[in-house]
Parts: sequence; C-alpha cells; structure tokens
Amino acid sequence: MPDSYSPRPEHRFSFGLWTVGNRGRDPFGDAVRPTLDPVEAVRLLARVGAWGVSLHDNDLVPIDATAAERDRIVAEFKRACKDHGLVVPMTTVNLFFDPVFRDGAFTSNQPGVRAYALEKTKRAIDLGQELGAKIFVLWGGREGTETDACRRPDTAIKRLREALNQLCEYALEQRYDVRLAMEAKPNEPRGDIYMATTGAYLGLIPTLDHPDMVGVNPEVAHEQMAGLNFLHVVAQAWESGKLFHIDLNDQMPGRYDQDYRFGSANVKAAFWLVKFLEDVGYAGPRHFDAHAYRTEDAAGVEAFARGCMRTYLILKERGERWNADREIQSLLNARSQDTASDRATLAAPGLGYEQLDQWTMEILLGAR
Amino acid sequence: MPDSYSPRPEHRFSFGLWTVGNRGRDPFGDAVRPTLDPVEAVRLLARVGAWGVSLHDNDLVPIDATAAERDRIVAEFKRACKDHGLVVPMTTVNLFFDPVFRDGAFTSNQPGVRAYALEKTKRAIDLGQELGAKIFVLWGGREGTETDACRRPDTAIKRLREALNQLCEYALEQRYDVRLAMEAKPNEPRGDIYMATTGAYLGLIPTLDHPDMVGVNPEVAHEQMAGLNFLHVVAQAWESGKLFHIDLNDQMPGRYDQDYRFGSANVKAAFWLVKFLEDVGYAGPRHFDAHAYRTEDAAGVEAFARGCMRTYLILKERGERWNADREIQSLLNARSQDTASDRATLAAPGLGYEQLDQWTMEILLGAR
Amino acid sequence: MPDSYSPRPEHRFSFGLWTVGNRGRDPFGDAVRPTLDPVEAVRLLARVGAWGVSLHDNDLVPIDATAAERDRIVAEFKRACKDHGLVVPMTTVNLFFDPVFRDGAFTSNQPGVRAYALEKTKRAIDLGQELGAKIFVLWGGREGTETDACRRPDTAIKRLREALNQLCEYALEQRYDVRLAMEAKPNEPRGDIYMATTGAYLGLIPTLDHPDMVGVNPEVAHEQMAGLNFLHVVAQAWESGKLFHIDLNDQMPGRYDQDYRFGSANVKAAFWLVKFLEDVGYAGPRHFDAHAYRTEDAAGVEAFARGCMRTYLILKERGERWNADREIQSLLNARSQDTASDRATLAAPGLGYEQLDQWTMEILLGAR
Amino acid sequence: MPDSYSPRPEHRFSFGLWTVGNRGRDPFGDAVRPTLDPVEAVRLLARVGAWGVSLHDNDLVPIDATAAERDRIVAEFKRACKDHGLVVPMTTVNLFFDPVFRDGAFTSNQPGVRAYALEKTKRAIDLGQELGAKIFVLWGGREGTETDACRRPDTAIKRLREALNQLCEYALEQRYDVRLAMEAKPNEPRGDIYMATTGAYLGLIPTLDHPDMVGVNPEVAHEQMAGLNFLHVVAQAWESGKLFHIDLNDQMPGRYDQDYRFGSANVKAAFWLVKFLEDVGYAGPRHFDAHAYRTEDAAGVEAFARGCMRTYLILKERGERWNADREIQSLLNARSQDTASDRATLAAPGLGYEQLDQWTMEILLGAR
Repeated sequence: MPDSYSPRPEHRFSFGLWTVGNRGRDPFGDAVRPTLDPVEAVRLLARVGAWGVSLHDNDLVPIDATAAERDRIVAEFKRACKDHGLVVPMTTVNLFFDPVFRDGAFTSNQPGVRAYALEKTKRAIDLGQELGAKIFVLWGGREGTETDACRRPDTAIKRLREALNQLCEYALEQRYDVRLAMEAKPNEPRGDIYMATTGAYLGLIPTLDHPDMVGVNPEVAHEQMAGLNFLHVVAQAWESGKLFHIDLNDQMPGRYDQDYRFGSANVKAAFWLVKFLEDVGYAGPRHFDAHAYRTEDAAGVEAFARGCMRTYLILKERGERWNADREIQSLLNARSQDTASDRATLAAPGLGYEQLDQWTMEILLGAR
Repeated sequence: MPDSYSPRPEHRFSFGLWTVGNRGRDPFGDAVRPTLDPVEAVRLLARVGAWGVSLHDNDLVPIDATAAERDRIVAEFKRACKDHGLVVPMTTVNLFFDPVFRDGAFTSNQPGVRAYALEKTKRAIDLGQELGAKIFVLWGGREGTETDACRRPDTAIKRLREALNQLCEYALEQRYDVRLAMEAKPNEPRGDIYMATTGAYLGLIPTLDHPDMVGVNPEVAHEQMAGLNFLHVVAQAWESGKLFHIDLNDQMPGRYDQDYRFGSANVKAAFWLVKFLEDVGYAGPRHFDAHAYRTEDAAGVEAFARGCMRTYLILKERGERWNADREIQSLLNARSQDTASDRATLAAPGLGYEQLDQWTMEILLGAR
Repeated sequence: MPDSYSPRPEHRFSFGLWTVGNRGRDPFGDAVRPTLDPVEAVRLLARVGAWGVSLHDNDLVPIDATAAERDRIVAEFKRACKDHGLVVPMTTVNLFFDPVFRDGAFTSNQPGVRAYALEKTKRAIDLGQELGAKIFVLWGGREGTETDACRRPDTAIKRLREALNQLCEYALEQRYDVRLAMEAKPNEPRGDIYMATTGAYLGLIPTLDHPDMVGVNPEVAHEQMAGLNFLHVVAQAWESGKLFHIDLNDQMPGRYDQDYRFGSANVKAAFWLVKFLEDVGYAGPRHFDAHAYRTEDAAGVEAFARGCMRTYLILKERGERWNADREIQSLLNARSQDTASDRATLAAPGLGYEQLDQWTMEILLGAR
Repeated sequence: MPDSYSPRPEHRFSFGLWTVGNRGRDPFGDAVRPTLDPVEAVRLLARVGAWGVSLHDNDLVPIDATAAERDRIVAEFKRACKDHGLVVPMTTVNLFFDPVFRDGAFTSNQPGVRAYALEKTKRAIDLGQELGAKIFVLWGGREGTETDACRRPDTAIKRLREALNQLCEYALEQRYDVRLAMEAKPNEPRGDIYMATTGAYLGLIPTLDHPDMVGVNPEVAHEQMAGLNFLHVVAQAWESGKLFHIDLNDQMPGRYDQDYRFGSANVKAAFWLVKFLEDVGYAGPRHFDAHAYRTEDAAGVEAFARGCMRTYLILKERGERWNADREIQSLLNARSQDTASDRATLAAPGLGYEQLDQWTMEILLGAR
C-alpha cells in the first residue's frame, strides 16, 4: 500500500516557494518560523518527492535587488533545481505585498502604479522564461475595492484588459513560450476583488486581443470561500480548453483564506476533483498552494507537504476503484435509455442517487 | 418630494406574475395567500404604476392546458395588458416545478426529459413572441446535483450548450425577434446548480453557435447568496455587451433564496447598482423578481410592489446628487495625475477613500 | 466487515416520521413522492434496523382531527410500534406549517396566536407521554423576523421564556416524565430566527424557572448553516449537562437547509462528532433528521435511511482505531509536560498537528 | 444639522489604541502607515471628539519592557489622557500576537503556556485598574483549532472555565472594581475559535464560580461573519443583564474579519442596533473596534474615526424619528388585541410588515 501512495515525478506534484516557506504570520500574529532560503526549499521539496517548484518573482529575488544580485540569486537557484532534479513549471508576480499596490496594480487610479505593475510583470515573465516555466500565473489580489466609490468597475475591467493585452504583446514580441493563467478570488485582502470567480475570467478572456494565450488557474480555496462547487468550476475551465494550471489546497466555505493541506477540509470534494483531473487526462502540474498550520515547525512543514501528495494519491486510487465498480457503473447508466415522451412516465422511476452517493462514501472511506 | 419618487412608464419597471402572485408557500409552511389570477395581477401592477409584466409559461397557461384553453387564456391576458397599458418585455419557461425535472431539464440523464424540456421551451418562446416579448430568460434551476456521482459536470455543460444551440436555431428558423438571457444561481433548489454565477455564463456564451443571441440576466439575490459583489458582476456583463435583462430584489449573503423587496437588505449595494445602471444608460427593463413576506395579505403585496419602485427612485436621485457633489468628484480624481515611477512616491499619498465612502453614506442617508 | 456496520437496537438509531415520509416538495417544486402512512413508516424503519421513531404531533394526527379520530390514529400507531419493536424516544410539536404561525408562535404579536401555540404544545406533550417519549423537542422555526421593525427582540425573548416556563409548569402539574430539548436554527424559513444558535439556548436556559427540565437538541445542519463547528457546539452542550437529544444530518455551510444523509457533506466533521458522542458515552438517541434527495423513490428513501446508520457505524469504528493508534496518542500527549516559564522555550517546539491531522485523514479513508 | 451629529462626551464614544493605530498590515501585504505613538493617538482621539480610549496591555507597554520602562510609559500615557480629557473605560490583554500563543493561551496543551497566559492577564488587569478601567475584555483569539485532533473540545472548555475562575478570584482578592466582558468570534485567526458566538459565552457564564462578575462584549463583525443577526445577539445579552461592553464596526457576512467603519457595510443593521442601545438606555461605552482602509494615510484615519461617530449620531436621530412616527407606531400595535381562539381568524389579517419596513427604509434614507 505505501508504495502506491508515494509521489513520483510522473505525478507532476509542484509546490510554491511561498508554501513550504510560509512563516505563519497572520493578521493577529507574528511569524513563528524562520525564513526559508529558496535553495533550502528546493532541498526540502526534493526530499519529500515533489517534481516541481513555482515562485513569485519576489519569493526569489528581493524587490530592491540590484541586477547583479538578481543574477547571482537566479543562477544559484537554477543550479539547486538542477542538482535536485526539480523543474520550474510555473512562475508568477507579486503585485500585492508592497504598499505601492495598496489600491491595485493594473487597475489602480494612479497611472504611475499601473505602469510600474506592467513593468514589474514583464520582468517576472522574463524570469519565468529564464527558469524554463511555460505557465505564468496572474493573481490580481489587490485589484478590488473596500468601497465602490473609488472607481467604476467597468473602468477597472478596461484597465485589466489593457494590461493583459500588453503582456501578451510583450510575450509575442519576445517570442516567449508562455501562456497566462488567471487566478480568481472573491475577497481578501480586498473587501471585494474584481473578477471574483474563475467564471468571470472565462468571460473576460474571449474579449482579449490574444484569447488563445490566456487561460485560468482555479484555486480550490478561492472558489470554496464563495461556497461554490469547485469541481463544476474546473469542469467548465477544462471543457473550454482553459485549464492551464490548478492550485490545490482546502478551505471551509465562508471564511478567511485558509490554504489548508489538500483534502483536509472537504475530502469528498477533493475526491471528485482528483477523479476528474485523472479521468480527463489533465496533463499539467498538480500544484499545491497551501501552507502548514501556524503550530508547526520545520518537521511539521514537511509532514504537511508529504500529506498533500499522499492524500492526492489515495484519492486517485479511490477514483480508479469507483470507475471499476460494476454496481456503481450499472446504476449510473440505468436511465440513459429513458426516451418516453410523457411527463408521468419519465418522472416515475427513482434515480438511485442516494445509493450511488452512499457507495461513493464507502469507497472513499475504504469500506467497500 | 413624493412626485419625483413615483413610478412612470419611462422608468421601465416590470414585475413577474409570480412575484405579486407569490402565495407564501415555503419549505416549512403552507400557502398563506389565495391564487392571484393573471388578469388580476395585471390590474394590480397597473394600479401601482408598473410598466411591464413578465411570466413563466405556466404562470399563465397550466402545464396540462388544452390548445383551446391555452389560446383563450392568452387572448384574455393580452386584452388585460392592453386595457391597462402594460407591456410584456420578457417571458421565461418553468423547467423546475414538475417532478419530471427533478434531476434537471436540459442536463438530465434521461434523454426523454431533455427532449421534453427542449420542446416545452420552444413553446414558451412561441408564447413570448405572441405576447411581444423580445427577451427570453432561461434559469436552469434544476440543472445541478446533490451528489456529483450522478454525472460528469463537463457532460452537463455539453448538454446545456447543445440545448442552447438548438433554441437559437429554432428562433432563427422562426425569424423570431428574441434574445436569450441566461440566469445563474449557485444553489437551491439543487445542492449545487451548474453555471453557478453570471461569470460562468459569460464564459459559456462565446462557446455557443450563436453567441450574439445570448446574454445574461443577473439577479441580485443569486450573486449575493454566494457573497459576491453584484455591482461588479453587472459591470462585467454590461461592459461585454451582455446585460440583456436584470432581476432586482435583495438578499442576505449565505442564506436561502430570500427574494426580498429591492433595497431592503443591503441598501448600499442597491445604491451602487442603481447608480451604475443609470450612469451607463441601461435601457432594458428594471425587473423586480421578489415577493412579499409571508406575513402579508393583498395590501401588503401592494405595499411591497410600491416599495420596490420607490426605493429605486430614491436611490436614483441619490446617485444624481453623488455625481453632482463637487467635493466627491474632486477627491475621486485627485490621484489621476500620479505618474511618478518610483514605488515610494507612488505609495506616499493617502487615497481618501474613507472620506469618500463616508460622504457616500451621508448622501445615501439624506444627511449631506 | 458488513456485520460490524449493521444497525442494532443498542445503537439507539431513530428517525422522524417526517424524514422517511418527506415528499420532496421544495420552494421551486412539487412533491415527487406519495404520502407515507405512519404505520408504513414504522414498517420501513423496522425493516432497515432502526430502534426508534419520533414525530411532530401533526405527522401523526392531522391538525383538525376530532378527538375520536385522534385516539384511533394513536392507538393504531402504538400497536404498529409494538408489533415492530420500535420505541418513541422523542416527540415534538409543529408550530410552523399552519398559516396561523406565519409570524411566530410563542413570540407572535397576536396574543391569540401565543395562547393557541401554548395549548397546541401542551396537547403535543400529552401525546408524547402517551407514546412513552421522555424527550420533547421544541424548534421555534417561525419565531423570528424578516424585518426587525415588527417587534423588539428582547420582547420576543421574554415571550419565549414565559411560554417555556408555562410548559414546564404544565409538565410538573401533570407529573410527566419529560424534559424539553430546545433546537436552534439561524434562519429559514424566517429571515432570522430568534435563538439562532445552540449557544443562545444555553444562555437562555439558566434564566428559566425550571432550568433543570430544559436542555438542547443541536442539529448538525443548523449550526453548519452558520458555518459553525458542530463538534464544539455539542461539546459545550454535553459539558454543561444539557445534551438532551441530537439531530444528525449534513449540510454545506452558507446555504438553504439541506438535511442531507448523515456524513455525506462533511464526513470529517461527522467523524469527530461520532467519536465524541461515543467517547463521552452519550446515551441518548442517535436521531436522524434528514431526508432523501428529491430524485428518489421509495427504494431510494430506504437506501438513504440505511446509509445514515451505516456511515455512523463506520465512523464509530474509525474512532476506535484512532483511539487505539499509538503514534497518534503519543503525538497527542507530547507537550503535556511543557512547564517552562519563558515564552521562547514554550514557543520553540512544533506541535505536530499536520501529522496528527494527516494520520486522522488516513484512518478516516481506511488507508492507515 | 452638523451640530446634532457632532460627538460629545455624553455620547461615550471610545476607540482602541489599536484602531487608529492600525498600520494596515494584512496577510498579503506590509504595513502602509507608520507606528502611532500612544500619546499621539490620545491627541488624535481628543481632536476628533472621542470620550474614551481603550487598549491591550501591549498596545501601550511592549511585551518585554522592564518594570521601569513600563511605569514610565504608563505615567506618560495617564498624563496625556488627563491633559486631553480622555478616560480609559476598558482595557484588555493581548493573548494572540506572540508565537507562544500559537495554539491558544488558557486552552493550550502546554501547561507552561496556560500559566504564562494567566499571569500576563493578571498584569493586564492590574494595568487596567491603574488606568481607571472598570471593564476588562477577554478575547480568546487563539483558543481554537485547525484540526480537532489536537484536543477534546470539552477539555478546552474546562481549561477556559478554570482560567476565568482564577481571574475572578484574583480580582476579588485584590478588591478590584472590574468586570470581565467575554468577546466571541467564530474563526480567524484560528480555523475555528472555541466559544464561537456570544450565545456560547452566555451559556458558559452561569457555570462559573462568580457569574455576576462576567458578561459579554459582542462585536458587530464577529457575529456577522457567521451571518447572525447582531441585534438579536445584543438583545439577548442585554435582556439577561450581561451587556457589559460592545464593539462597533461593520462586516460583510461570510468573509475575513473586515473591521470596517461603523455603518458602512450594513447600515440597516447598524440602525436597528443604535436604536436598540438608545431605546433601552445602554449606559456603557460606544466602543469602535475598527480601522481605516489600507489605502489611507493619517488624514484618512481621522476621517474614519469621525465617520464612525457621525454615522452613529445620524442613526440615533433616525431612531428618534422612527419612534415618533405615528403611522409606524399605529401599524406596529395593530394586532396586539387579536385574542380570537380559532386559527382561521387569527391567520386572516395581513400584518403590514412590508409597509413597516418600507417606511423604515425611507426614514433611514431621509426620505420620510
């Protein structure tokens, strides 16, 4: 049993530098863990069996680093990745930490902020290319409001579109091999964030100049914060060819952003998700954007990272059992020949979904 | 003052037959009000000053009416509308009440149900055309799940797309002057409804065969159930040319579908919404999809309907005051020339949003 | 394996008549299942292995039954229970369905309604005694508001206290062997229900004339609607000696009242709950207040009922495994000797909760 | 008009040092405002018209200050308060920021942490007495869990009770004139916080050794996070004599803790609250526990503070108008003589609540 639940490179498990490097700071408390050097993070990820490592520009290179410092840091990081057999499948840009972004980056009312954000993002795309990343995630965490007095929301959308168009132009000019994956979130750190759901981005993308270059990066926690069914969100993204990347973690609905270990809050939802990704043959990274509880030290961080992958693999195996279960398959297809044309006949048979769901629970619990 | 808050035809206020006709039945209680005859409803709406009346097929014509009954009922209704000067700007189809739709209509696993739903919808579109309605709303209230064991969600999306394509084909064949407006809802009566948010529909529409014929009908309560900022949702729909219709009511987040009187739960959100619709020049119906509390009799229903419109008009006037307020406009534009290129300079000035929001509150409260 | 998950009388599983009898009516749809005669319900419950059956007065006796009809119905029901070996551990009163209760029962502004509600409740307590029930649940589903304009909430509390005091007096006068168990719910069918959480009732009870006679009946779905941790709620009730009864079902947070099959929405929360009830030796009924999906027929209702009990028993066995797991117990107790007095020393060790939770998940999933 | 909305000492408006001193740090971003010296904060609060200032021990005295430093700081602060005519009605203790409290204070599994927390709290009570504060608030922000594996929740409750009993003993021994006010919160910074609602504390208090010394400090945002009706919560606390203090701010339901300016998110709820406090004659501090948006500088912080008080006073005046409105009062009392004994008669009249609520909205909006 243990073997089948151990991560291997073909599982394509990746973690952000900021996840294992999370220091446990929160709105009411100080950091509880020391800074984790990026090279140390690479070692940790290699040790637990991850395949890839992702990063924000400033996870690796400080915002005020000189060009020389930047080059030295990047070279050292690339060497560490190579030495430990890790790839960098995705990078992103931090447009949220610095006070300059206090009212947004691409949608700010200050033209200077919009210009700075665009420039910073281009440099982050450059960095991604240097590291071999073909996916560039954009999370507009500060693009939002606490009061809608500050700007008309359609103005914000126009500014966002303009920025995305310019970034695509830049990537084309540079002949970069990169696609953008937009990440939605309903709120936090802003009262309301524009493009609150993955659906909103799926609606925006067709209005861009280069829609083929842009897809989505749905995150479990972000959709579940709004109480949405994450499987349904992912299925729409997948079905429209836009599932460029995915962020795995967990979250209780209607709360602050918890970024829990994958599968630890709603394991049934996690099961449907894993089963879907495996059934459709999603070939991208299984990227964990989560962090250890604030009660943990370095050993706890490692247990957290191992747990994310192990739970994924347990659920993957349960999905295979579910697919192979003849009673389930039989019940699932029982009504696919109902072609009567009168309401009463069509409404008569029970659909057996209580039984179907109970069998699912028993497979999930290892009791069937 | 009263005069400026009285509804006039140019305000384009409309109500569904099912709104003033709501009998107060709920999951725990029986009906408290008698059935309201559609012709009586028309009289009521005319009396309170509405401009339009909308309906589901079965609000007017019973699901099992003969052709002759149907024609008689429709003729009588048209006459009543004409007599009372009401138009029918929108119609829709009931694909949720009858047990045949217990597991969806267009997305049902039973082919017979899918075929029946399509046919029923075509007949409802016919009815809409007969009544002069150029907007046809589709709310897939039963298209969803309690357990995701029952079907793969991408299958549901494909079935939904297929149905929408066929409906557009039908309207084109018939040379109907009609556009479809899709209405999203996250849950209730299903555990999860597919296409949970307006954003999801904005993402689906570009994948249809006739995307120009299809837009959205966002509803205040439905987005607020998921805790989303309704203004942002509407702004995206508007900005992409897809705001074909709108459902006005009110709702506390994270609860059952309340369909409260417009502006009665979150009047600040209602203010931003009205201001946006008026500022951008939205020319469609201001359609109220709400109902009176279960504590009310016929007089209460009338007070409810009058209140929806009166609150809209009060908020409209407050929006005009806000736009004309020089201090507000000055503060709003204060930072639009910030073109510095260094972070510290850009981050230095306060943005004055607390003041801006407080002034907004005071205009809203009639205290500025 | 099957045997250990089969219900037996000592498990004390009970179901409400209204649960297996639920007809699938909802705010947007008609009933999908026929009325289930109470005697038939008893047969069904006996067949699936339940120990007890509970009821509202009007689940058994129509609200307008004559005394003779009532006596006949009750006698027939008692005989059926006896014949099938079922007990009636709890009864309750329906103060929510009839239009007379549209604005509350004990808290109504109409004195006549308050008097009628009190009288109806006394008759329901009589019925419970006749059936041998020692627990009487009170759910004030209509005690609430859509607008707080209608009464001051402290007035409502005073009226509620007055009613509870009179009911206790009545039970004492009649020398009944009965205790009241108060059931909280945050909203639905009212916009807000007074005494929104079990905690609110725990605060009210000490202010009653006979606090020892009154406890609580927490319901999984009701606390989870408000996003609360149900285990914590139950623990407080238990720890203060007030856990008189419990309603088991399941629910996604922030939604309409779903009353799902036990363990089917948040199985981890269900696990902690079952483990707690078993660990502390809760001796009352394990009462399921849930119903089958609207997609189901009679067979589906039976699958639903069996599933509730089977999942409970699986989780009970997992709790035993958890308690017996030496690594878990060792980690759990690792820091119980930390008596240092300086902050830095105390803050240094990691607490191992990621590991502890991951092991829990693996026990739950049958993978440890 | 302006005069009647200007704060005066008799309004008893107070602010925490941490509110105007909030630096705008959040989970995704750095501080945006400089540290505000406590003496400067006193000047600011005096300037805007506040009556009182409250504080956590470490808002004033650093956690590692020497006794001499502590005495100097306290003396300087007392002088500043005196000079500016501010009182200190309430103090509290910070049991959440330091890493030592990462898994709770009074409920920690580490005995040394529990002892340290108790000692720190006694010193904070001493400080409160020195500053003349008769109310001591306790918010157990870290008393909770991310996984219920870590301890049984009834153990946590016992530890919490033990701590509260010891603190009451200490205050009695010292002959302090102080009462404890317990502040509930459902989650954040912990996944779930024990004693999630004010109701839970109202249930706990009667089980303490000195229940008369302990009451509650409900906070608008904390109950609204769980979607609860804050008015109902406050009414229960008031009606049972336990409303020792109150925290005013605002919050959208189902989100991270927003601590918005009073009245800025749900002004109707704020209206009912202010009206209740004024109608019942609540004599305690109107304490604002909120902070300025992260977009603000010092001027914005001042606008925020002024706005909290101004909105309160506008709402207070609207409450007076509501009470004096004869149509409202007449409608409110219309059914208080309904003493019929038959259901149909009692259920017949409409209750007029739509009208009542609409009139309320119009008073609120200054349009009646």
